[in-house]
Amino acid sequence: MTVGQQHTVKAFDQDIGQLRGLISQMGGLAESAIAQSMIALQRGDVDLADRIRQDDRRIDAIEAEVERTAVRIIALRAPMANDLREVVAALKIAGVVERIADYAKNIAKRVPQLESDHRIEPVSMLPAMARMAADMVTDVLNAFAARDPEAALAVCERDHALDDFYDSIFRTLVTYMVENPKTISQCAHLLFIAKNLERIGDHATNVAEMVYFAATGTRMVEREKGSE
Amino acid sequence: MTVGQQHTVKAFDQDIGQLRGLISQMGGLAESAIAQSMIALQRGDVDLADRIRQDDRRIDAIEAEVERTAVRIIALRAPMANDLREVVAALKIAGVVERIADYAKNIAKRVPQLESDHRIEPVSMLPAMARMAADMVTDVLNAFAARDPEAALAVCERDHALDDFYDSIFRTLVTYMVENPKTISQCAHLLFIAKNLERIGDHATNVAEMVYFAATGTRMVEREKGSE
Repeated sequence: MTVGQQHTVKAFDQDIGQLRGLISQMGGLAESAIAQSMIALQRGDVDLADRIRQDDRRIDAIEAEVERTAVRIIALRAPMANDLREVVAALKIAGVVERIADYAKNIAKRVPQLESDHRIEPVSMLPAMARMAADMVTDVLNAFAARDPEAALAVCERDHALDDFYDSIFRTLVTYMVENPKTISQCAHLLFIAKNLERIGDHATNVAEMVYFAATGTRMVEREKGSE
Repeated sequence: MTVGQQHTVKAFDQDIGQLRGLISQMGGLAESAIAQSMIALQRGDVDLADRIRQDDRRIDAIEAEVERTAVRIIALRAPMANDLREVVAALKIAGVVERIADYAKNIAKRVPQLESDHRIEPVSMLPAMARMAADMVTDVLNAFAARDPEAALAVCERDHALDDFYDSIFRTLVTYMVENPKTISQCAHLLFIAKNLERIGDHATNVAEMVYFAATGTRMVEREKGSE
């Protein structure tokens, strides 16, 4: 390796390190938004819900920075094969994390609509589901940071449990609506919130596939994607 | 302009033309998927619903081709300013069109779950909403093809009408559930379908913003994004 090549490699490593840092930051903010959205939901805290919506702009801004950085790396360093695969993965993962954060924001947006004197009982099922979804996000971004395809696979395997949780909440809410017709509108909002959490798990799974591909160059076996 | 530069410009125009062609093709398939999903829904046609799900793979494959082409253009041609903005816009628009098609697929996935002896009446509200959403997709992709920022703006303005349509369907469905508790589970699926159509409009709006930015270099004024 010539001195010139060494220099290029180092600059590329710095660039990709910067991308990874930005994505970890986005991931932290998204996890926090999911957790906060559950607190806002349980407390009926409209101010907190509003803050989550405001904070989402920060995540959008970091995504835009990832995009600028990735395009600059591709244009300036013209990375080949493995390196290019990693830059493209970073670009796409940032897009997915932004979507994950959007789901948390959308949960927050429902808090004012749910305002009522007392929280209906099925609300209490959601935080456990949210924790499961947020853990998948944390773990898949750790897998990305560690370039660990096995850890990424493990995240995918947990998506079934989250889907089962969603199905169970769906059935519970429908039953609750039948028995308490006055709560139908509120329960409909809770259905959408559960669906948002289920979608967060799907997106964590998508990220896991990207991490796996970036790390190994081969795709995970084609799996049936979750519903929207 | 030297002969060498002329050669480069022409090659870039061919490349970007290829990207535009791929995106138009994706758009056509997505519009068709939305329309077909409504036919499957109204007829309770499970086979058609299954075909929509299968066809979605074709859209995913074209998106992957857009991604490969865009990365190749950036790496090989190192486009500057306006040209780079256009390639990045194409890359992002392809991602959004893929998501739009996913919503149609997700509507199709609900058709077997809705199977029942007779279609409940609120189903009849959805095709008109779907047409509105699909028209926004058609028109925004035409705006992209024509690099027409004014046409893109006009698409954004129509999103409010779609949101109002959604709100009206939401209220109708909740009322229907209260009056017909046996249909609650079916109506919950219809709520999700209406929400998917509303999201298609949000995504058409996102594409409109990208078209506007690619064509003008300035961003549309910050607007409140739709909920998920």
